[in-house]
Amino acid sequence: MAQKFATREEDYSKWYNELVGRADLAEHSGVKGCMVIKPYGFAIWEKMRDILDAKFKETGHSNAYFPIFIPKSLFEAEEKNAEGFAKECAVVTHYRLKADPNNKGKLIVDPDSKLEEELIVRPTSEAIIWNTYKGWIQSYRDLPILINQWANVVRWEMKTRLFLRTTEFLWQEGHTAHATKTEAIQETEQMLDVYTEFSENYMAMPVIKGFKTESERFAGADETYCIEAMMQDGKALQAGTSHFLGQNFAKAFDVKFADKEGKLDHVWATSWGVSTRLMGALIMTHSDDEGLVLPPKLAPIQVVIVPIYKNEEELKLVSEKALEIKKALFSKGISVKFDDDDNRRPGWKFAEYEVKGVPVRLAIGPRDLAENKIELARRDTKEKMTISLDGLDLFIENLLNDIQDNLYNRALKFKAENIHYVDSYQEFKEKIETVGGFFMVHWDGTAETEAKIKEETKATIRCIPLDAKEEAGKCMVTGLPSSKRVVLAKAY
Amino acid sequence: MAQKFATREEDYSKWYNELVGRADLAEHSGVKGCMVIKPYGFAIWEKMRDILDAKFKETGHSNAYFPIFIPKSLFEAEEKNAEGFAKECAVVTHYRLKADPNNKGKLIVDPDSKLEEELIVRPTSEAIIWNTYKGWIQSYRDLPILINQWANVVRWEMKTRLFLRTTEFLWQEGHTAHATKTEAIQETEQMLDVYTEFSENYMAMPVIKGFKTESERFAGADETYCIEAMMQDGKALQAGTSHFLGQNFAKAFDVKFADKEGKLDHVWATSWGVSTRLMGALIMTHSDDEGLVLPPKLAPIQVVIVPIYKNEEELKLVSEKALEIKKALFSKGISVKFDDDDNRRPGWKFAEYEVKGVPVRLAIGPRDLAENKIELARRDTKEKMTISLDGLDLFIENLLNDIQDNLYNRALKFKAENIHYVDSYQEFKEKIETVGGFFMVHWDGTAETEAKIKEETKATIRCIPLDAKEEAGKCMVTGLPSSKRVVLAKAY
Repeated sequence: MAQKFATREEDYSKWYNELVGRADLAEHSGVKGCMVIKPYGFAIWEKMRDILDAKFKETGHSNAYFPIFIPKSLFEAEEKNAEGFAKECAVVTHYRLKADPNNKGKLIVDPDSKLEEELIVRPTSEAIIWNTYKGWIQSYRDLPILINQWANVVRWEMKTRLFLRTTEFLWQEGHTAHATKTEAIQETEQMLDVYTEFSENYMAMPVIKGFKTESERFAGADETYCIEAMMQDGKALQAGTSHFLGQNFAKAFDVKFADKEGKLDHVWATSWGVSTRLMGALIMTHSDDEGLVLPPKLAPIQVVIVPIYKNEEELKLVSEKALEIKKALFSKGISVKFDDDDNRRPGWKFAEYEVKGVPVRLAIGPRDLAENKIELARRDTKEKMTISLDGLDLFIENLLNDIQDNLYNRALKFKAENIHYVDSYQEFKEKIETVGGFFMVHWDGTAETEAKIKEETKATIRCIPLDAKEEAGKCMVTGLPSSKRVVLAKAY
Repeated sequence: MAQKFATREEDYSKWYNELVGRADLAEHSGVKGCMVIKPYGFAIWEKMRDILDAKFKETGHSNAYFPIFIPKSLFEAEEKNAEGFAKECAVVTHYRLKADPNNKGKLIVDPDSKLEEELIVRPTSEAIIWNTYKGWIQSYRDLPILINQWANVVRWEMKTRLFLRTTEFLWQEGHTAHATKTEAIQETEQMLDVYTEFSENYMAMPVIKGFKTESERFAGADETYCIEAMMQDGKALQAGTSHFLGQNFAKAFDVKFADKEGKLDHVWATSWGVSTRLMGALIMTHSDDEGLVLPPKLAPIQVVIVPIYKNEEELKLVSEKALEIKKALFSKGISVKFDDDDNRRPGWKFAEYEVKGVPVRLAIGPRDLAENKIELARRDTKEKMTISLDGLDLFIENLLNDIQDNLYNRALKFKAENIHYVDSYQEFKEKIETVGGFFMVHWDGTAETEAKIKEETKATIRCIPLDAKEEAGKCMVTGLPSSKRVVLAKAY
């Protein structure tokens, strides 16, 4: 632990990269742009996945699985979608290797195995799914279709960062089909609410719900809803999107249904997704210079117990009590690790669980035992306290709830403090560079102004908040009239 | 339901294909060789996955995730493994599409995006994982590594069948690293036991545990253990494999560890996997001409309640009772669907749940209610009975266990009846074509004889049973001495 790591103050980006490594979450792989998600990182992702999966099922969705490959002719059917993803597609062109005649033990691509039609590794699955739905939908009785899939997708990236931007990532993608526009919009909004509830109540991460501007919309969508979170450096991170796809894919794949009167119409669609990017959001919302800080609801280990002992006999004594505590906590649904690894000293363990963001650490030695006490440290505030062993399980149960709330409130406060209402472009240009954060500004609604701001400041319109107040104003750039403020920020 | 479907007797293969469609499990996709797993099929797979996942965790494994792509130079490092999979590899050669200048709205592969090094879509992940483990392992303290991943893999297949053989399939692959050969072999055997226990206790599918012959071994393994199940047509299906990889991958990727004395040695490895192929095994073990038959432990819906009614009032009366039953069963952990869809008649529903293999069907009407009775039908034996509503939940709980046991015992009996001990090659050649099943035969242990049998009869040595009795005998083909019998069968 002698190594010196970057602090957030010194170099936020370096701090993040080092933290992902120190906390054993993920690493770069031997494949450019692709990551290895390590067991501890994956355990957090599994918790996220399981909670979201339960919420999708509660709202009536089923899981299914569609192919990873999309034939080029299907991929290009919805033109806007195809155009939006064309520049980042991994393409399979051959299906066989053979021995290299000039290099013993090496392989070359067999030129005789060239595919007649190239296959795209899915960057998103609308095309293959709507080509499938075509066969499933004839009448209103077949609707709605409410399906989700957990899958890997590939979007070729030149510059990657672990979790935040990788060529391959894991995600879920919901794809639903409806008889009416109203129902499809309700679904889009419902799933945005599911994401919001998950972000706030589980990730302890406040978000702003909004619409994307036309230029930031998902390729092929009529409307993209999003949730935007503020990271500790004031930058925005798009944490989830829910798209109202209109009839675009139904038209591209000719998917029609007969209503009760037998009239044919194209089907209405939505799609919505969150990805392993949420891991990046989670890390950057709560962690500190000492390491990861995890909200208890997503912590694979919620409580760690470290025994303090000088000899076998003391360890035995302490272990008995520790296992008793573990059992009591376990019966309350709290996950506990008792770390009695004899190869590591308590100080090493303290540092290890701190860097890994375990919410509560208990340390217990023979003297504590004799006094019926235990030493407790909470990760979020770094407070240490000595408490009685009596009623410890209840104390910890409440404490975990407190920690969850504290993390949320802390992030909420940070967000509130870093939202600026600005009416002058000059002021904006200064402040985005000095104080950073989210800027609530009037904008004239044109793509030109949006592009100009991006060009000149690197900030983008993150969203038009769903709850934006009607407020007469003037675009800070052009002076043209505007009726509500939008959120402007630099983004991940 | 007027359509006539093939029976097992008439055409087993057609029966299987039709059943997968009728029960709404999966279908072929717009991508050659790749399947769409439909919600009902996926719900069964999810149950399998969750049960197995819990067993992997109980035995100390963690999940992680490794890239889908393997650079060719890594892929070819372990020569036998590379050679074994080279002929079925999907290869990514480009990373971008662009507008087709000659065909508006269409895309072509951008020739300027050719990769310097081709990427193989993983057919199995030993190469990328051992290249990663190299960075994780320095000393004995870093061992063992016990990791599993749930993932999609691609093996190019010319002739595919839903679940049984598809170009893309879902699976889990465990990859472990150990300090000693003994420990690695114990791990290999432990995971074979996990698969066996899952097959028998959850899938209700008896298996034979054994070793593969050298020619049937996993490419890159020193020993492949397997479980082989007998389908209703007497053919064998390899349901799971567990490989002792020796030091082959450690040597190919130069992965060494320092033992307690500081001496360096290569690490010992295992890998083990089961796939969506198990869905095919499940279907073919239990189903009948009327449709799917599911063991209760893997049934997404264990009990369905169908209301019988003539009018709104009767429906209301019946629904009340049905929901009460549902609640009582739910509190026993039994999954129940109450199907009150007014668009479908009871007869349609009966057929629907029969084809979908729901273990228990309840039908309840006003007359039953008045008499405090309910009509119950079990899917496995097709028995119908009228039983009292008193103590119904307990009755059903026991019944589900009975059904689970009955399916296992029925499959066990079938297997026992279709295992033949044969000592003459002539008799074998006749019987494999007439009665089919598994044949216990003496074999001289040579690859030549094995190849000759395969060539002449299409049967393969499925395994050398772990519990094979020592028994002096003569190879049925060459007359050379043999000390135990092997299992010979045609296989999926």
